[in-house]
Amino acid sequence: MDRGAIYLLTDYGDADEFAGVVRAVLGRHAPRAPVVDLTHQVPPFDVRFGARSLARAAPFLGPGVVLAVVDPGVGSPRRAVAVTLDSPGHPHALVGPDNGLLIDAAAVLGGPRSAVEVASDSQSRSGTFDGRDVFAPAAAALWRGESPSTLGTAVAPDELVRLAPARCVLEPGRVDAEVLWIDRFGNVQLAARADALGTLELCALELGAARSSGGEIEVCSAHVTRPARLVSAFADLAGLEHSTLGVLVDANGHLSVVCDRASAATVLAVQSGDIVTLLALRRRHR
Amino acid sequence: MDRGAIYLLTDYGDADEFAGVVRAVLGRHAPRAPVVDLTHQVPPFDVRFGARSLARAAPFLGPGVVLAVVDPGVGSPRRAVAVTLDSPGHPHALVGPDNGLLIDAAAVLGGPRSAVEVASDSQSRSGTFDGRDVFAPAAAALWRGESPSTLGTAVAPDELVRLAPARCVLEPGRVDAEVLWIDRFGNVQLAARADALGTLELCALELGAARSSGGEIEVCSAHVTRPARLVSAFADLAGLEHSTLGVLVDANGHLSVVCDRASAATVLAVQSGDIVTLLALRRRHR
Amino acid sequence: MDRGAIYLLTDYGDADEFAGVVRAVLGRHAPRAPVVDLTHQVPPFDVRFGARSLARAAPFLGPGVVLAVVDPGVGSPRRAVAVTLDSPGHPHALVGPDNGLLIDAAAVLGGPRSAVEVASDSQSRSGTFDGRDVFAPAAAALWRGESPSTLGTAVAPDELVRLAPARCVLEPGRVDAEVLWIDRFGNVQLAARADALGTLELCALELGAARSSGGEIEVCSAHVTRPARLVSAFADLAGLEHSTLGVLVDANGHLSVVCDRASAATVLAVQSGDIVTLLALRRRHR
Repeated sequence: MDRGAIYLLTDYGDADEFAGVVRAVLGRHAPRAPVVDLTHQVPPFDVRFGARSLARAAPFLGPGVVLAVVDPGVGSPRRAVAVTLDSPGHPHALVGPDNGLLIDAAAVLGGPRSAVEVASDSQSRSGTFDGRDVFAPAAAALWRGESPSTLGTAVAPDELVRLAPARCVLEPGRVDAEVLWIDRFGNVQLAARADALGTLELCALELGAARSSGGEIEVCSAHVTRPARLVSAFADLAGLEHSTLGVLVDANGHLSVVCDRASAATVLAVQSGDIVTLLALRRRHR
Repeated sequence: MDRGAIYLLTDYGDADEFAGVVRAVLGRHAPRAPVVDLTHQVPPFDVRFGARSLARAAPFLGPGVVLAVVDPGVGSPRRAVAVTLDSPGHPHALVGPDNGLLIDAAAVLGGPRSAVEVASDSQSRSGTFDGRDVFAPAAAALWRGESPSTLGTAVAPDELVRLAPARCVLEPGRVDAEVLWIDRFGNVQLAARADALGTLELCALELGAARSSGGEIEVCSAHVTRPARLVSAFADLAGLEHSTLGVLVDANGHLSVVCDRASAATVLAVQSGDIVTLLALRRRHR
Repeated sequence: MDRGAIYLLTDYGDADEFAGVVRAVLGRHAPRAPVVDLTHQVPPFDVRFGARSLARAAPFLGPGVVLAVVDPGVGSPRRAVAVTLDSPGHPHALVGPDNGLLIDAAAVLGGPRSAVEVASDSQSRSGTFDGRDVFAPAAAALWRGESPSTLGTAVAPDELVRLAPARCVLEPGRVDAEVLWIDRFGNVQLAARADALGTLELCALELGAARSSGGEIEVCSAHVTRPARLVSAFADLAGLEHSTLGVLVDANGHLSVVCDRASAATVLAVQSGDIVTLLALRRRHR
């Protein structure tokens, strides 16, 4: 039987042996489990960043168990939890701290079916490295097929900690949306989804026509206002003036502000959490 | 039957979950495939860097499939390709964009035997993340043993995109060679190969005698001219004045300018793509 | 039979394909071996850093073989060694250069039982990449169950190179200890172990009472003197003034100076190798 993999996401970085030790502990408790590293470069303590990264990855994860640790409250009374899911072909459980890290990914995969607070043996727990001492053994047990009820007592899913949702306000011809993520390439992912294009009176089917008319919208950060084109890929901006901005529906179904082989985040001078405004130029100028 | 591994090389970095999502997709499509990460730290969009890194790794790869993505043209009409090889004990296919990324590695492994353009289902393709949507499923299919012909239509191998070769000019007593690579340790790999030592009138067999006579050649960058010794290992420079340069045949059969526990790239003030000149001193002074 | 894993620790970084090539070579020589990366971000040539990282990880490693390479002397007459252990449930061998890198981890796992100098075929050895050419094939052979004696000739364990121990001096009410490690989060691990708390006239059992009385000790670096609390987790400092220091017994049994979600290393202006002094305030003020 294929139990799938154990998927790891942490803020442990790679300069220290933290992630390696967690992998080793998983290997001891679940020797046959393939371990898939999603990322260990979540900025230290940035639960929100980790939650978003995990939620973006979630639809692409096969069967198995997710182990996620971004845990500024390690050693505090915050709960360690295992959240079970019922999304065939995807992970059946998420393990980590109950601080909002897991809940967005759970929502993407149909929502939590149940949850347990993972009990820990205070003898074998250091108080500073629950990824090694608590979460990895729990994730390995769930991967092996043990029942979540063996790990601890039930928690009602609606008692799990949730993060405040990212800001996104749609008005006719205008989208104000929080920057969710700036990736390695400087692409600026917004909290707005593809359906916000309708608000801009431009639906996806019209993109081809709109594209041929040049810059159709304006992109505004606190520092910069720039025209932008609605495009379907980075390459649609090739050959245009350097740092020409585009807005596209990205690989996660969000609107992203992008350049072709340059950083839109640098052009806009924004960082994660900032607000970016998209304005439909045609509407404004009517 | 041992199908070998899937070898990954990308410019995805590790701060985002890109590489992790590709690993997860491979796990869904080829659950038993061991995944070997070569590197994900190719500088963004640097096809040449990626091609060289892959070509250096190629002779050491066992059976399986290579999945390489450095793809500034994602979403453009550039082809997605699978290149097949016939080099027993090594990968039987390379998958990635047709932009020159794969071709040097293919050459190292005997040259492409055939190639196909990988067709993609525009429904399931985001246009910005072909590593996830196109290349990973294709690589997994080839790893499972599917025929390349099931992926798309044939492309003549001599129609594959090739990069311009690195510059290397040999004259009696002189080598002008492009810097191919500066590694983590500051070693400066040149486009010249071991046989260029003959041009310097110093063959490998004479190295022992030459070494005893002190600096035998001069190494020149645009900024710096320095004497250097012909050596066979970093340690041959131990105990000499700090930042003494050596030239050796490196682990890939190229000439490299090196220091002992210091950065030759810093000493020479060079970066990848610059030209470095090696001059045979004995010849010049004769 | 479960042979366990091959555990990797190097200073190869991740920008180059070095670690990937070693993983590929392991895959060729031991196709079924799970490979667990501990870290590849040991600072270049920093044998001491690598030795400490490996020793911290050692108690958490399951069966298998450790392959560690931080090797400034590659190509010199320094020995390549395989050290065998007899610690059931943990690795049975460590492979790497004989420069002190392996010996602390061996000590943690009961000490070396035997050692061999790994012979190498000068034909297949580049002189600059023993991780690929010498250590990986040797580690794979040991993982497959080959006898260490097939790799080379015996070396007496007490002839293995050892690093100088880190400095740690205990006086009544005072601990002077070298900084062993500053992790990603800025935690400052000291050479002093938990039992040094006794020297401070504060044993672990008294921590609860001590904690309620506020700052009980003083932490001094060359630049800064600050009061600190004895705590059992980062979270015990939550809600206190920003950059309040704590001292705790960390996940490796060492004393560490920490902050809650901030860098104690920055507060103290220390780096690895510096001396930090802990003073029992109650004693001093008596």
